[in-house]
Amino acid sequence: MTRVAVVLSGCGVFDGAEIHESVLTLLRLAEKGIDYQCLAPNIDQLHVINHLTGEISEGERRNVLVEAARIARGEIIDLARATADDYDAVILPGGFGAAKNLSDFALKGAACSVNPELKRFVTALHAAGKPVGLICIAPALTPLLIGQGARCTIGNEEGVAQAIEAMGGQHQNCAVEDIVVDRQNKLVTTPAYMLAGSIVEAAQGINKLVDAVVEMI
Amino acid sequence: MTRVAVVLSGCGVFDGAEIHESVLTLLRLAEKGIDYQCLAPNIDQLHVINHLTGEISEGERRNVLVEAARIARGEIIDLARATADDYDAVILPGGFGAAKNLSDFALKGAACSVNPELKRFVTALHAAGKPVGLICIAPALTPLLIGQGARCTIGNEEGVAQAIEAMGGQHQNCAVEDIVVDRQNKLVTTPAYMLAGSIVEAAQGINKLVDAVVEMI
Repeated sequence: MTRVAVVLSGCGVFDGAEIHESVLTLLRLAEKGIDYQCLAPNIDQLHVINHLTGEISEGERRNVLVEAARIARGEIIDLARATADDYDAVILPGGFGAAKNLSDFALKGAACSVNPELKRFVTALHAAGKPVGLICIAPALTPLLIGQGARCTIGNEEGVAQAIEAMGGQHQNCAVEDIVVDRQNKLVTTPAYMLAGSIVEAAQGINKLVDAVVEMI
Repeated sequence: MTRVAVVLSGCGVFDGAEIHESVLTLLRLAEKGIDYQCLAPNIDQLHVINHLTGEISEGERRNVLVEAARIARGEIIDLARATADDYDAVILPGGFGAAKNLSDFALKGAACSVNPELKRFVTALHAAGKPVGLICIAPALTPLLIGQGARCTIGNEEGVAQAIEAMGGQHQNCAVEDIVVDRQNKLVTTPAYMLAGSIVEAAQGINKLVDAVVEMI
């Protein structure tokens, strides 16, 4: 049976995985009859943001795997225990967790690095010719996860697009309801909440992304 | 413009609002072009559950409104500030938060009481002839929120069904993909994750519930 890995980065748009994007990804996979497994790194979050006020919750610590388990209803495994052989594709929803926990892109921009377990896992899938889907801000990691010259989108945010180009990626502007497909790299990306004004807009691009990823398996 | 209130009880199935059910509710409302507003009480959660291990996280405290803000992407208001006049209907997703934070049903069963702000808000909507939708375990609050004799479902869990009857409600068994509609009370209920084995099954019932609630506005 086809099985897709969904890598989460916490639980909440400002310090973890964007919840709508994560659930929309799982929903579309399930609608297509595709089995999925949620995974997350067993590391502390960069910080905790109070999502009511937008402020940092000083002194509070949360673990990415433990918080991501909320989205996965407890059905989640440590990314460090995951083997690329067990999966046919991988999708990363967005949210600041992709730029704060899965990488330090939010702090360092083009000088960022990615979580070593994420790099190991996604690199192995990509090397095996399996498709990769990156949503929202997660495509900022394209040059580090997929390699130089890979083509992606985060919508049209100039600063992020320039950082992607500076790291050796190719950025292509894209509307919220659309996707960018780099067929050579089997990479699919969509802006989602980088541009979306509603959950319906986010769903349009995410549904297309999931469909394109599954079609390339 | 039609506006539906969605009352959340935290963020996570074991100690707050069930995330999939919450997002599926927002998605269906948005797909139908219905404006929604998330609300939650500004109170501490009963406790915090580590969703990876299922154990209580001793000594940790989280606020229902602050955690629910994660699902709402920050766009949420304190239930105590909400006026029934501003809304055309109300929907409560499930998750243990409905039985632990919005009420003490998880602790006291048929002897439970509901959060006073929730009671004030839902009672006023119901008294104004506006429809109410309750998902998953939230229909256990039917007798206290809607009144004696109101008909609802939580699926087929015998203990919960008996408690609802003991409180003066009428419980009707229901399949996961279906809803129970009490037209006289303008009340719609569905089992969702009380029975669902997948997010697709939960979505089937929730989509029908949202459609039925909106149709009765």
